[in-house]
Amino acid sequence: MNVIFTIIHIFGLVTMGFSGLMLTCLITALFAADPAVNAFLMSAPITLLAGMAMFLPTLKTPKKVSRQAGFLLVSMTWSLIPVFCTLPLLFYMPQLSFVDAYFEVVSGLTTTGATVLSGIDNLPMSINLWRHELNWIAGMGIIIFAVAILPILGIGGMQLYIAETPGSVKESDLPPRIAQTAKALWMVYAGISLVCILALKLAGMNWFDAICHAFAAMSLGGFSTHDSSVGYFNSLPIEIVLTVFQLIAAINFASHFIALRKRSFKPYIYDMEAKAFLLLVLSSCVLTASVLWRSGTYPDFLTALRHATFNLVTIATDCGFASQDFNQWPIFVPMWMLFLSCLSASSGSTGGGIRMIRTIILMKQARMELFKFIHPAAIRSLRIGDTVINHNIVTSVMGFIFLYFISIVILVFTLLFSGMDFISAFSAIISCFNNAGPGLNQVGPAGNYASLSDFQTSVCTFAMLLGRVQIFSIVILFVPEFWRK
Amino acid sequence: MNVIFTIIHIFGLVTMGFSGLMLTCLITALFAADPAVNAFLMSAPITLLAGMAMFLPTLKTPKKVSRQAGFLLVSMTWSLIPVFCTLPLLFYMPQLSFVDAYFEVVSGLTTTGATVLSGIDNLPMSINLWRHELNWIAGMGIIIFAVAILPILGIGGMQLYIAETPGSVKESDLPPRIAQTAKALWMVYAGISLVCILALKLAGMNWFDAICHAFAAMSLGGFSTHDSSVGYFNSLPIEIVLTVFQLIAAINFASHFIALRKRSFKPYIYDMEAKAFLLLVLSSCVLTASVLWRSGTYPDFLTALRHATFNLVTIATDCGFASQDFNQWPIFVPMWMLFLSCLSASSGSTGGGIRMIRTIILMKQARMELFKFIHPAAIRSLRIGDTVINHNIVTSVMGFIFLYFISIVILVFTLLFSGMDFISAFSAIISCFNNAGPGLNQVGPAGNYASLSDFQTSVCTFAMLLGRVQIFSIVILFVPEFWRK
Ligand SMILES: [K+]
Ligand SMILES: [K+]
Repeated sequence: MNVIFTIIHIFGLVTMGFSGLMLTCLITALFAADPAVNAFLMSAPITLLAGMAMFLPTLKTPKKVSRQAGFLLVSMTWSLIPVFCTLPLLFYMPQLSFVDAYFEVVSGLTTTGATVLSGIDNLPMSINLWRHELNWIAGMGIIIFAVAILPILGIGGMQLYIAETPGSVKESDLPPRIAQTAKALWMVYAGISLVCILALKLAGMNWFDAICHAFAAMSLGGFSTHDSSVGYFNSLPIEIVLTVFQLIAAINFASHFIALRKRSFKPYIYDMEAKAFLLLVLSSCVLTASVLWRSGTYPDFLTALRHATFNLVTIATDCGFASQDFNQWPIFVPMWMLFLSCLSASSGSTGGGIRMIRTIILMKQARMELFKFIHPAAIRSLRIGDTVINHNIVTSVMGFIFLYFISIVILVFTLLFSGMDFISAFSAIISCFNNAGPGLNQVGPAGNYASLSDFQTSVCTFAMLLGRVQIFSIVILFVPEFWRK
Repeated sequence: MNVIFTIIHIFGLVTMGFSGLMLTCLITALFAADPAVNAFLMSAPITLLAGMAMFLPTLKTPKKVSRQAGFLLVSMTWSLIPVFCTLPLLFYMPQLSFVDAYFEVVSGLTTTGATVLSGIDNLPMSINLWRHELNWIAGMGIIIFAVAILPILGIGGMQLYIAETPGSVKESDLPPRIAQTAKALWMVYAGISLVCILALKLAGMNWFDAICHAFAAMSLGGFSTHDSSVGYFNSLPIEIVLTVFQLIAAINFASHFIALRKRSFKPYIYDMEAKAFLLLVLSSCVLTASVLWRSGTYPDFLTALRHATFNLVTIATDCGFASQDFNQWPIFVPMWMLFLSCLSASSGSTGGGIRMIRTIILMKQARMELFKFIHPAAIRSLRIGDTVINHNIVTSVMGFIFLYFISIVILVFTLLFSGMDFISAFSAIISCFNNAGPGLNQVGPAGNYASLSDFQTSVCTFAMLLGRVQIFSIVILFVPEFWRK
């Protein structure tokens, strides 16, 4: 029973933290004299009181959390905190259904950035800030989840980051303890976010848009303050700045930390994920630009390159802005973008999907299977850099990717069963599951998720959550053995 | 060098065999006095002479084939024998391009059954017999490939059938040597085919149609003598007979052999693949029938059940007849049918795709990963029945499935790149790769593959070959280590 009290205690603490976040929006609403003052004036105290009601009575429970409780805590936090976060939306827009509000908030907190709201341009500043704060704060949570919690829970081969840390993290001077690690990475995250805000202001945004879009870019959340997303600005400088910062955000923050501390670019050279990611994404930009140019979608190659680059990078990094209606492009291009969204982002970044490290391990394993096939007697082990990757980790990675694949198949069939067309269903699940955002057709960049039925919206919400906690943390709850003492 | 001569020798022998097959069509053409007499009159001697030119000069080479040469022989046979088999088509229809003729013949010999020919109803009997003989003879080749060659080459975990044979094959009294195994299984195959012919005749077909459709059903090839496939007959008894024999053909022929020898149903009860297959397919029939009924596609449940059952079974078993234009059905149903085509057929059957045994191993492995996750210290091994599955086999199976998946992704993107729409490209590759036959939209059951460009046709041809030799036998040829001494 102690376990449950501990979980409630920690959950209460997080809830109280979110009431603090609401306070910043309340202040914004007061300064801007916008119509959402009342919404935050009600939400903040309710959330604070609920948090205190969980936190205070459980003060005396032991603070240690078992591995099992860790899973529960992760899935609880990501699925129940959103309930409190819907409050400002529901108070401000009473006509909004809970299913839609919950989708919007989960979309923010999983940094998916898909939206069911139309007319975002006319929302009060404070409400838009709230959406973008959810993005940004979730980005922090994800970095910690990836760097500190995932390896301990040992999800999908990520225990490789504890014992034997390949690539950039290997020669790391990352502080060993979680609290210290968290603090160090948050400083990096906050610092780069600040630079991003300034760069966006210089590129021509107003301060409010700069802050919101920097939050969305660094967390790879991809919310915007405009219905037409970044297309609204129609500005090359803004697209360049956002492209650069999205690429930065999709690289392991541990690499950024080491690079900043050593004031050197070398850590990136040792970061195998970052190298593979940049190579794959940049060559894809040229490839897709050629397709757009050849097909006559844009009159000249440079225009095609501009639009291919921005929209491909934003989907591949799982950020999910849009500057053009890529649903109108030759289908090869958006499908390739969605494919990249499955595997491009680095572990320890704010992106989603399979992560580049697992892709690399899988490719190496496939290559080795072919080798073993030719020389059945030979013994060879899988290496990344100088590090030998333990066989168990390879199996875990393969297990993870299988579970990833099966989850997508089941979710797509569920949407098809509900009557959705294939391309909409397929792209919606791929995009939600990888926490990217926009899909194609019905959920394409020109539209949003508002046209979905409540059932379809719930399926997409579940996909976002499942993808964000890397499947295992939720699936594990359905395994009977989990609940046995 | 000796290796090459041995390969040429065996290949020559096979070529001579196919000239014998042409002879049966020549005789048919003479009896029917149909206009394809000349086509076979030219093809048969050319093929015979070519075969002899390879067979006779290499008579004195050693007859033993290394594992490496085995791969070469498999890919050579399945990609070069079709060149000879195109001759009757090219002689009879000079306007047919080689790309299309090669597609048609590869489709026959991989038992895919996709066609680029329209007006099949009006083709000479001998030409249709030729197409169906390709189906039927390939079925024999596939059974031997699956039961005798695959385990020795050790492709994708199928070595499990040598050392430790799970399920039905375990308590087998299968003769141990390849030649004997082959003979035994061919007897079973030919015997069941004969029964199928008689059953189809009784159900109302004429003798010629009965023979052709029995050939297509037992090989799970799926060629028909009519453009509208089995829909032409519009006969419930015919659909029932074909459904039953397709289900039989998708079960391991080793199980049939043992069941026949022991005159007992028990071997099927020990055949885990057969049980999983029947359970999955039959429950899917009910599910999809409900969807068709609910959506109003058919007025009553029984009609929906009839059409769902025939079309689902034929796609799920990778046979690929059609009795209705399932492209018009709610998209959930044909997509589910295509999904089943990826995994339903048993090893040792004439079907294609991943095979049920690998699906079972993968599911058990995923289940075990979840268990290991909860009890990291526990040691448990993967079992099928009483047999412990070696870890290497599990890795091979996972490697195979990964290669399977990656091949599909690459091939689909190649078709998208060529300008095809997504559903056509996706369904064409899934259907060709699993050797099922029809896809959706442009390549749906109401049309065929004739509308594809030469490039697209070639991609589909390659997909059929790659799927049929279980990927490895071809991919391995592109690994440099393979060619080193
Ligand atoms: K996103
Ligand atoms: K077929």
